[in-house]
Amino acid sequence: MVDLTEKTLGIKRVFEGRALTLDVAEIELPNGRRSVREFVRHRGAAVVLGERPDGQWVLVHQYRRAVEETLLEFVAGCLEEGESTEAGAAREMEEESGYQVLSLTRIGTIVPCPGYSEERLHLFHAAISQEPQAPRPDFDENLVVTVMSAEEIDTAVDSGIMIDAKSIAAWLMWRRKKAAALL
Amino acid sequence: MVDLTEKTLGIKRVFEGRALTLDVAEIELPNGRRSVREFVRHRGAAVVLGERPDGQWVLVHQYRRAVEETLLEFVAGCLEEGESTEAGAAREMEEESGYQVLSLTRIGTIVPCPGYSEERLHLFHAAISQEPQAPRPDFDENLVVTVMSAEEIDTAVDSGIMIDAKSIAAWLMWRRKKAAALL
Repeated sequence: MVDLTEKTLGIKRVFEGRALTLDVAEIELPNGRRSVREFVRHRGAAVVLGERPDGQWVLVHQYRRAVEETLLEFVAGCLEEGESTEAGAAREMEEESGYQVLSLTRIGTIVPCPGYSEERLHLFHAAISQEPQAPRPDFDENLVVTVMSAEEIDTAVDSGIMIDAKSIAAWLMWRRKKAAALL
Repeated sequence: MVDLTEKTLGIKRVFEGRALTLDVAEIELPNGRRSVREFVRHRGAAVVLGERPDGQWVLVHQYRRAVEETLLEFVAGCLEEGESTEAGAAREMEEESGYQVLSLTRIGTIVPCPGYSEERLHLFHAAISQEPQAPRPDFDENLVVTVMSAEEIDTAVDSGIMIDAKSIAAWLMWRRKKAAALL
């Protein structure tokens, strides 16, 4: 295939906030034309499908100001500096939900917003404890933990109750791989 | 369920670039604590699974500077001001690929980045023409159209060749709904 790589001529930081950092890259296309690409810097995040020994799944209802809705999502959160994706996945599950991670299986890595964010999402299945300890969410995380069956999650995807792309992609990738014994 | 809605106390524009606009909202959580939410403003976009009469699918290889990779994606693009999601889907398919849209079926709506973007993605299946006209991409769109079978797309998802979350979610939602005759 033809090489579509864009040459970066320069890069400038244009915003640095509490959670978001924005850069603008001046680029040259393969055809020689120049343009700019504005994008969010991101350390990456983990998404965790937590399954209890009884076959029930742990999710969260989380209010998301950006879309002004409370969403049904799997547990997810940003990696800390220098943290492995596995350590981040286990930490996020324990902090957000209180459930302990017993073992992790990697599902894959996806990009949620390649048009304007460098974020990569590392997807995991986690075997978790049957009972939670007290969760320890960040001071401004605004969520409630919920427990659902696989059939209830399928219905949430099919009916449009679950609209979070990372949660849908992670769940359906897991379902496919389980069905095909790819994991 | 408990109401998790965050009260917006104020909102400020902090960056307005060529393609991205960033706002910061000062918010009050249900427990009375205050914080800020930084997020990308977005008009919404359409994602189109284009299927030719011969059962082959139209996708694009597109270089994405934010992740510094050429990605395999379904056709997608931002809605124009005042444009319906259907009109946007048909326009993007014709501009990016050159294929004509004969009919559209709505698959659903998802949010790719609810933590820091208000973007909503409207997912469609499109019955398209067998042969393309000349595409008319934006001057700085950097992509190559490709044609694949359903089996090749499944393999791309399972093997990690396709990592674009919106494309994976749209494709697997479509596969599920077709299998279950939900559409």
